[in-house]
Amino acid sequence: MTTAAPPTRAYRRLSVEERRTQLLGAALTLFAHRAPDEVSLDEVATVAGVSRPLVYRYFPGGRQQLYEAALRSAAEKLILCFSEPPVGPPTERVLRVLDRYLAFVDEHDAGFSALLRGGSVVETSRTTAIVDEVRRAAAEQILLHLGRGGADAGAEPGSRLRMMVRTWIAAVEAASLIWLDEGKQPAAADLRDWLVDQLIALLAATAATDPGTASAVAELLPLENAAGPAGRLAERLIPVVGGAAHLLPEG
Amino acid sequence: MTTAAPPTRAYRRLSVEERRTQLLGAALTLFAHRAPDEVSLDEVATVAGVSRPLVYRYFPGGRQQLYEAALRSAAEKLILCFSEPPVGPPTERVLRVLDRYLAFVDEHDAGFSALLRGGSVVETSRTTAIVDEVRRAAAEQILLHLGRGGADAGAEPGSRLRMMVRTWIAAVEAASLIWLDEGKQPAAADLRDWLVDQLIALLAATAATDPGTASAVAELLPLENAAGPAGRLAERLIPVVGGAAHLLPEG
Repeated sequence: MTTAAPPTRAYRRLSVEERRTQLLGAALTLFAHRAPDEVSLDEVATVAGVSRPLVYRYFPGGRQQLYEAALRSAAEKLILCFSEPPVGPPTERVLRVLDRYLAFVDEHDAGFSALLRGGSVVETSRTTAIVDEVRRAAAEQILLHLGRGGADAGAEPGSRLRMMVRTWIAAVEAASLIWLDEGKQPAAADLRDWLVDQLIALLAATAATDPGTASAVAELLPLENAAGPAGRLAERLIPVVGGAAHLLPEG
Repeated sequence: MTTAAPPTRAYRRLSVEERRTQLLGAALTLFAHRAPDEVSLDEVATVAGVSRPLVYRYFPGGRQQLYEAALRSAAEKLILCFSEPPVGPPTERVLRVLDRYLAFVDEHDAGFSALLRGGSVVETSRTTAIVDEVRRAAAEQILLHLGRGGADAGAEPGSRLRMMVRTWIAAVEAASLIWLDEGKQPAAADLRDWLVDQLIALLAATAATDPGTASAVAELLPLENAAGPAGRLAERLIPVVGGAAHLLPEG
């Protein structure tokens, strides 16, 4: 029916698009749990239950093309993790985003690690661009929950707040890699809570010197409550700052 | 005198080691300000004032070998930036470390960017290992100033504090890359102060839930004073936390 249609009777059961999706699924499974350099096209064919030439028919660029296609599909999934309705206390929204993000990291552990560590043969300026696209999309979503999404989602963020969110995302990435290295310790929920605490702490520290962040924080605080992440952190900070009285002008 | 000695009369003035150092210097200058893919061996030869075959005699692996040697030499320089005598308020030591680090980033801008962004043809598992070595050394130095350097430099750090320092280093790296992208804005001293504020905020937030970090912070606070970075941040945080009374149990 189409020139790209698979050649044998057994293969004809799937449409071109279905076959492509199936091969990509097999590739994603393999690339998720092993470094890309360790995945062969033969294995993709075996996992998909097809012949090696068929894999090449769909992905003439071989492993590199298959890897990039799998990465693009994983990136789309990951960007969806950051999508969260803008209702309720902002820190609780970020908590839910991180739950989904860490579940994704858990599910794609070895591939995630290999991709972000770099130095792999399949890494190119195209794969780096895909990763950067995810980082940018994640930053936009977080800014939206901080009331600085621009357009319909609040004022435009100042450059310092934007920089802060991007550095926090880098910290989340780094923490995820260490988490994978350390056998997924601590528990994902503990890591998640700590990463939200980091975001709150960074917001406060940045608001201390940046007026744009200070006004965002002033608008965010009334949306938070004592039972949520911000309240929990505030309460637990009391004993910590108890030893800091001598740092204040009055002390 | 030695089999690797350069062939012509003019070249004989430098010893093998001197010539190697000179070629490496030329390479480092070029790799510092341009992406590695844009630097040719002809240019290295021109900058060093030697012939292309001579460059190949010293670096038979061509651009890749020269890049790795230049990177190793830059990594040694960068690790030295993190070395700081363990005297005075810890936050002021970190300030001085960051001054040197940001001067290094400024001086090697394009090369630093290209290296950390990944996707370059010269990136290999060896170059990634060199970068990781710098990150590890930087984390050890910071832990030392936090009184958790192990052995002679305080107790062993707990795993959460170690993870925190490593995520902060990732944030510093990310902030440096954004800083380069944004035409080195804000001023290096502002960026430095903000990165120290971030470290203080992360320490407080981590101490809120991790007993090991709480005891490190309790030991650090008496070493700080009102005029230093910790005092400055504490004072500026007062108006920010003013809006957070409702988050506390009493509020």
